[in-house]
Amino acid sequence: MADWTDCLDFGISLAKQASEVREPATDQVQDVRSDMGESVAAGEPLELTDRPTWIIDPIDGTVNFVHRFPFVAISIAFTVNKQTEFGIVYSCVEDKLFHAQRGRGAFLNGEPLHVSGQEDISRCVVVTEIGAERDDLALSTLTSNIFRLLKLPVHGVRALGTAAVDMCQVATGGADAYYHIGMHCWDIAASAIIVKEAGGVVTDTDGSEFDMMSRRVIAASSSSVANRISQVVRAFPCRRDCGGAPGTDR
Amino acid sequence: MADWTDCLDFGISLAKQASEVREPATDQVQDVRSDMGESVAAGEPLELTDRPTWIIDPIDGTVNFVHRFPFVAISIAFTVNKQTEFGIVYSCVEDKLFHAQRGRGAFLNGEPLHVSGQEDISRCVVVTEIGAERDDLALSTLTSNIFRLLKLPVHGVRALGTAAVDMCQVATGGADAYYHIGMHCWDIAASAIIVKEAGGVVTDTDGSEFDMMSRRVIAASSSSVANRISQVVRAFPCRRDCGGAPGTDR
Repeated sequence: MADWTDCLDFGISLAKQASEVREPATDQVQDVRSDMGESVAAGEPLELTDRPTWIIDPIDGTVNFVHRFPFVAISIAFTVNKQTEFGIVYSCVEDKLFHAQRGRGAFLNGEPLHVSGQEDISRCVVVTEIGAERDDLALSTLTSNIFRLLKLPVHGVRALGTAAVDMCQVATGGADAYYHIGMHCWDIAASAIIVKEAGGVVTDTDGSEFDMMSRRVIAASSSSVANRISQVVRAFPCRRDCGGAPGTDR
Repeated sequence: MADWTDCLDFGISLAKQASEVREPATDQVQDVRSDMGESVAAGEPLELTDRPTWIIDPIDGTVNFVHRFPFVAISIAFTVNKQTEFGIVYSCVEDKLFHAQRGRGAFLNGEPLHVSGQEDISRCVVVTEIGAERDDLALSTLTSNIFRLLKLPVHGVRALGTAAVDMCQVATGGADAYYHIGMHCWDIAASAIIVKEAGGVVTDTDGSEFDMMSRRVIAASSSSVANRISQVVRAFPCRRDCGGAPGTDR
């Protein structure tokens, strides 16, 4: 049975090489600022098949990248039979390489990672992102989610501007939960296996099984924290990454 | 005329030494989590006099510290005649030392800092914090501020969990603005001079002159961005750090 370790090693070398290209590129981004927005989400529907598939986000944290806000990641996941075999997140400004291989644990710069194990929502630091949505329904849903979480209360809410790095904070135990509505599969495919292999729980925001294409995710230190967040957080309709209507074609 | 450089050098050595104490201490913080909250703000009123005064926050980002979320700073400011002579922010996990001396510029690890100079609010990355407030008025004010900013729109909202480091992002040009309601003078006294010396603008959230004791601040890349944020952001009543009622004793 293939364990895909050669592919993992190739992915890690690719992430490092991509970072070397990125560094000089940051000197050329000053004029890109006016192009920010929804364009990245306006592409053709994707289809995840059973074939070996690379899911790559060459710059997770595009807004950070053009502003030089110092959190930008390269995210690489690899799936076979729709199952993620490994994930790599390279937070290149921080020089932090997160990776996990199915059944073999999660690592940061080679050191094993473990979630905090926190089970009490009122002791949690929660990370989230608002993303590029700007219509009233999406924004009021997202800000009222934050309001309700803080009323539970949680210890605090953080946002670094890159879904991949945000979610990896749960794997390190530095944050206890992450949730996001509206991101894409390439933002979180790698981080999802990193959190799971660090002992964490990954679900849909409605508490059901995680679906990479649904554009909704909770990553948490424990099932009880994931459940509590799913009770508080509301989603707004997002077109699935594979093109189906919201909530269909699971 | 004293230029206080000896005191600045002493402050920098103090920040580095404090960081060395902090590192082993992070192994002993697991049981502190239940003590989080408002206690730090419940002290006696402070008085800022004309005498030479050190304003020190030994751990800015206390929640991050106990959770090991990787942004914690030591913030040191020094005032004479109520004027800040220098400020030091040491973001110790990142090993980034920000400092500024009045009239002599701002620096990160010895390299000069400059704000982005951005004047268009719709191209801004904005950093803010919600802090420890959990009553309905404060939380609804803070989350509706975020809603209104995103509707302008701004490019994004970030929160690292330490006011001092958040505000220094404006000095680097990585973020274009920071605002905060409810923080304390020791959280932002050092960062305020760092932003100013990097060419930025620091005001009250109502657009009036910055008042270190008011618990309200905007730091921005330009006057136009600061003004635009002051038009959108609402404050809730906070007891001044020097003990006066909100809005009095400026």
